[in-house]
Amino acid sequence: MATCSADLAPLLGPNATAAADYICNKFSDTSFAVDNTYLLFSAYLVFSMQLGFAMLCAGSVRAKNTMNIMLTNVLDAAIGGLFYYLFGFAFAFGSPSNGFIGRHHFALRSVPSSSFDYSNFLYQWAFAIAAAGITSGSIAERTQFVSYLIYSSFLTGFVYPVVSHWFWATDGWASALRTDDFLFGSGVIDFAGSGVVHLVGGVAGLWGALIEGPRIGRFDHSGRSVALRGHSATLVVIGTFMLWFGWYGFNPGSFNKISSFYTSGNYYGQWSAVGRTAVTTTLAGCTAALTTLFGKRILTGHWNVTDVCNGLLGGFAAITAGCSVVEPWAAIICGFVAAWVLISCNKLAEKVKFDDPLEAAQLHGGCGAWGIIFTALFASEKYVREVYPSRPVRYGLFMGGGGRLLAAHIIQILVIVGWVSVTMGTLFYFLHKFGLLRISADDEMAGMDLTRHGGLAYVYHDEDESQKQGTQMRKIESHPSPSSV
Amino acid sequence: MATCSADLAPLLGPNATAAADYICNKFSDTSFAVDNTYLLFSAYLVFSMQLGFAMLCAGSVRAKNTMNIMLTNVLDAAIGGLFYYLFGFAFAFGSPSNGFIGRHHFALRSVPSSSFDYSNFLYQWAFAIAAAGITSGSIAERTQFVSYLIYSSFLTGFVYPVVSHWFWATDGWASALRTDDFLFGSGVIDFAGSGVVHLVGGVAGLWGALIEGPRIGRFDHSGRSVALRGHSATLVVIGTFMLWFGWYGFNPGSFNKISSFYTSGNYYGQWSAVGRTAVTTTLAGCTAALTTLFGKRILTGHWNVTDVCNGLLGGFAAITAGCSVVEPWAAIICGFVAAWVLISCNKLAEKVKFDDPLEAAQLHGGCGAWGIIFTALFASEKYVREVYPSRPVRYGLFMGGGGRLLAAHIIQILVIVGWVSVTMGTLFYFLHKFGLLRISADDEMAGMDLTRHGGLAYVYHDEDESQKQGTQMRKIESHPSPSSV
Amino acid sequence: MATCSADLAPLLGPNATAAADYICNKFSDTSFAVDNTYLLFSAYLVFSMQLGFAMLCAGSVRAKNTMNIMLTNVLDAAIGGLFYYLFGFAFAFGSPSNGFIGRHHFALRSVPSSSFDYSNFLYQWAFAIAAAGITSGSIAERTQFVSYLIYSSFLTGFVYPVVSHWFWATDGWASALRTDDFLFGSGVIDFAGSGVVHLVGGVAGLWGALIEGPRIGRFDHSGRSVALRGHSATLVVIGTFMLWFGWYGFNPGSFNKISSFYTSGNYYGQWSAVGRTAVTTTLAGCTAALTTLFGKRILTGHWNVTDVCNGLLGGFAAITAGCSVVEPWAAIICGFVAAWVLISCNKLAEKVKFDDPLEAAQLHGGCGAWGIIFTALFASEKYVREVYPSRPVRYGLFMGGGGRLLAAHIIQILVIVGWVSVTMGTLFYFLHKFGLLRISADDEMAGMDLTRHGGLAYVYHDEDESQKQGTQMRKIESHPSPSSV
Repeated sequence: MATCSADLAPLLGPNATAAADYICNKFSDTSFAVDNTYLLFSAYLVFSMQLGFAMLCAGSVRAKNTMNIMLTNVLDAAIGGLFYYLFGFAFAFGSPSNGFIGRHHFALRSVPSSSFDYSNFLYQWAFAIAAAGITSGSIAERTQFVSYLIYSSFLTGFVYPVVSHWFWATDGWASALRTDDFLFGSGVIDFAGSGVVHLVGGVAGLWGALIEGPRIGRFDHSGRSVALRGHSATLVVIGTFMLWFGWYGFNPGSFNKISSFYTSGNYYGQWSAVGRTAVTTTLAGCTAALTTLFGKRILTGHWNVTDVCNGLLGGFAAITAGCSVVEPWAAIICGFVAAWVLISCNKLAEKVKFDDPLEAAQLHGGCGAWGIIFTALFASEKYVREVYPSRPVRYGLFMGGGGRLLAAHIIQILVIVGWVSVTMGTLFYFLHKFGLLRISADDEMAGMDLTRHGGLAYVYHDEDESQKQGTQMRKIESHPSPSSV
Repeated sequence: MATCSADLAPLLGPNATAAADYICNKFSDTSFAVDNTYLLFSAYLVFSMQLGFAMLCAGSVRAKNTMNIMLTNVLDAAIGGLFYYLFGFAFAFGSPSNGFIGRHHFALRSVPSSSFDYSNFLYQWAFAIAAAGITSGSIAERTQFVSYLIYSSFLTGFVYPVVSHWFWATDGWASALRTDDFLFGSGVIDFAGSGVVHLVGGVAGLWGALIEGPRIGRFDHSGRSVALRGHSATLVVIGTFMLWFGWYGFNPGSFNKISSFYTSGNYYGQWSAVGRTAVTTTLAGCTAALTTLFGKRILTGHWNVTDVCNGLLGGFAAITAGCSVVEPWAAIICGFVAAWVLISCNKLAEKVKFDDPLEAAQLHGGCGAWGIIFTALFASEKYVREVYPSRPVRYGLFMGGGGRLLAAHIIQILVIVGWVSVTMGTLFYFLHKFGLLRISADDEMAGMDLTRHGGLAYVYHDEDESQKQGTQMRKIESHPSPSSV
Repeated sequence: MATCSADLAPLLGPNATAAADYICNKFSDTSFAVDNTYLLFSAYLVFSMQLGFAMLCAGSVRAKNTMNIMLTNVLDAAIGGLFYYLFGFAFAFGSPSNGFIGRHHFALRSVPSSSFDYSNFLYQWAFAIAAAGITSGSIAERTQFVSYLIYSSFLTGFVYPVVSHWFWATDGWASALRTDDFLFGSGVIDFAGSGVVHLVGGVAGLWGALIEGPRIGRFDHSGRSVALRGHSATLVVIGTFMLWFGWYGFNPGSFNKISSFYTSGNYYGQWSAVGRTAVTTTLAGCTAALTTLFGKRILTGHWNVTDVCNGLLGGFAAITAGCSVVEPWAAIICGFVAAWVLISCNKLAEKVKFDDPLEAAQLHGGCGAWGIIFTALFASEKYVREVYPSRPVRYGLFMGGGGRLLAAHIIQILVIVGWVSVTMGTLFYFLHKFGLLRISADDEMAGMDLTRHGGLAYVYHDEDESQKQGTQMRKIESHPSPSSV
């Protein structure tokens, strides 16, 4: 606004300051209205991914654990709402900070301000719960509910916010928004969070699943892999489409503002960059889906819809870091490689007898890490200059930008893996030590819905049968086993 | 626009009226574009709640009545579309009026005008069908289809529009938009309709369910409550998330405009109030969900996802009245109490053998009423001043605003309960008297899908079996029982 | 922008060109931001229709073909993404052209420009995949997967883009945006594509289904029609509501811009036309749904939710051509007739033993064609003038506009039927000749999910059973039949 008045007043002639102020103030109002509309609806889209996660998870587990996994997804959002309000947002964006963790805006104190409006909080909350949603997939079908409550609070309230502070806050130590020369004079370009969200969620899931071990029956006595098929491919497809839909809030929405111009009066502005981000996101996902389709057809002999869905999501997780700074054609490369990264990670997981019912560690961890590298290779000079104007430009190695961005991005992978391993790995380890992590073998065979959640998710039978079951249910309810939590 | 020109012209210097007009006209155009974009997309979100209701209802009934309940939800939207276009919108917003009922804009005559554009109609239609959706839950699994068609038309075309006129039209007798001194110099602050929508729908459902009586088998011969479990918790979760998603259109969208400023050129404006409304909505729902989780764990011994979903929705129904005028921390109190209100209402319902398959009367009626009281206790002076600038400010009792707002809000509960009881209660009573309300016991045992809707919702069996069933179906179809309607 | 400066500069006084430029540039920036926000979110809504199609299709087929049909819907979007990026958008909108096919913007070269931003591409891509989605319904449950891949690429990459060029590009030979006198001095008003999308998809499906013939068992040995009921009405309802939701992007979004004014400073502008379009869409669908409800009740003796859903969608398909240029009351007529068109087409299909599992040819073809005629009868002079300002006004026959528009619209139907028959009909014919079109009778009886897609979509049974099935599955996987593709 100040710039506007200073520019306009002399053009309007002498004594025109008040007129310029008046006009510029109205432009400022309009921008706030447009940008908040844009950010709020983007936040709603990101929130809708929670339904996507819930259905993807539900469809990918066996029917007997459906209530359990859906409850964890609902609670991610609910716990995240309170914890991100109380602490998370402050840790993530409470500048000025020491570079490691924020320390203002607890319980939204001093919000709104010239830096943050409520829409920013809502948008970031929707991101935080996405990270928790990723992890819940990795440890599905065998985790005690109390462990779930603990790790979800810790992840959305502390672990994830700290990482997002490093890379996204204006004074995070590795942020591309910093103006100083730290981290090879570069800073990390992780636009919408291949690292901050997907790698964090994936590594947390990796440790959870590793420490718990595979589900009973996942590998037979001779050690061969036995697919424990999810109970509904339909839910997997619903979930995938909802995640795709929501990703249009996740990636293009990460601009936060759409009304910024690059040259005033030109058709090309931040709205174009927003649109381009939606296009790169789409192309990466589509390419990954098709690559997976043909890749798995060759490897397994059939056309598999759930694999295609996972491939698609792997493409999205990968493009998330660089979506705003790469050309559409580069997004196709990103998606193509992402599909093979996921296939390879899944092969590796089978080899080492790692069991992740949602392939979440492989998908979000593996493809997220690839997306970080990809950005360091293909970021375009022009787009980096427009999207990150405050910083000396570093761009992709293959685009002639040298290796500094790549070095910074390798650091990003290392510190995220380190930080999440130290915090979440330790947490899962102690939960395991204290016998709070994994349910008993009997409970696992019976399914958690019957033993912990009051009954099965589905009652398709006729009345009498359902009433009998109802009775049985109430018996279980009235005698909760002593160990139940 | 006029204000803008009057302000700007003298600043621009002598003879600048035409220039000021030109500039201010363009600002006016922009505001219309932004506000209509905002309101239309909010309307689409509210409409998506209809999918939410349909799935919440479908999942909460037994499989044999799935087709029936889903059809009622589709028809709510369709019947509502025609009736709200022909009459409803005119009754609700056809000012100038006598304060009781509007009388202009039948079939959208004289729309658009300077008061209403098509977007306003669409937004209000989506609200009207939500009220009808609430009621259909209460009377599920035992109501004749013809009754359903009658009450749904009456509710969306007349009963609900009249209530919305009272509280939301500029000259409704209890509206906070009136500028005179009626109703304790206060008027009612029911921003998005805890009363106008939820209490109306809940009370209508209460009468329907009371007059019909419980479903067969809902209470056993010794009078004990027997849960008739819904057939799919997955659908309940889909429905809950869609409702949550849509509530971001319902509550923040009720501002209708987002581009209004409070002080021009400031970062804080109506866009901030919109964002804050989204935040209070989120926090109330999240708190209610968590409170229900632990509350029901203590009471029943297990972690129940459908109860958590209902608790969440109860929190939303409660915050709907005050969402725009309370602080985020107050929303947490709102949600916490809402959870216990719902638990208590459900206990009470069991005691008095009241059967509402969706807990709709308890949830929307009970929590809606709590939300009305809550607003009268916690409305903040500053926010009321900003959101309702036309009126002498009355705000929350606990915020130092005195008891007038509370008195007005108690009146609101009384008149809504009275009006809906007189209209909908009477309607249900006469439908009952004429034998049009409840289906026969045989039909209820067999399920309505087989007897009225051409077959079951699901055919998971193999071909031969499904064809046999198909044949059976056609037999039933060709001999509709004489009483069928 | 240029107009703005030329108008404003003299009003501001002498030497005010720079000031006028400055102010007008900022208005231009704002319009770009608002219009791109509007178009992008509309594109996201249209994309969400893909979830709608997937669920509508899945619910309408038998459980044994669920994986197959869902995979085709996911792939429509993915294949469409790549092909529309590489060729489709260029064929459709690569002006200047010869009037038949565009030839610029391959792989988004020269985008963004003053004509097209990325948001335009994304929006049009979402339309292209909708056309492919329609066709996949017609040939469900009996088509080889490889055929599916071929026709989907051909349709989204070539056949559909050419048609959209004719009617929607500024220099398409039949476009209402042309300024010359071709086609009865009229051009075709197919605002959102009753012809360009629905008739194209429907006719393509018609040929596919005709050439393949009916599914086994669809007509019994005596030739009577046997309903092969879809496996889940719940999925049909989810799909229908998602399509309804998405249609608010499809029809109102087709304005592309919302910030245009008709008279600056007036409350009535393009935002009103956008809202009116949402209202006509709603009313046409609602009326068609209610007409179908009562029509089918009389014809079949029961209240059928899936028929109501199809009727609703038929109303939407019909209003799509004229949604922006007809009065709300006319939309009611449109929906009423559309319902009977669909019922009649279905009767006819039964008579001639035509089997389309989704009624897609009847619904999108029949109601789409009706919508084209309807527009030529009821288009209002005022609205046509506003929406298509560049052309001498032709409007509806029943509104006093004469028969030229009707003549042009009959031509539209003829050329679309002709073009799609020649291209897609020929393609399906050769696929059939080369034995690539239909699966074997054995595979059809067993279902495609088991034989081609690695297993059934649902596993509701207990662990042991599911593992047995898992084993069986892997056996099938390891020995793909030689003919499998």
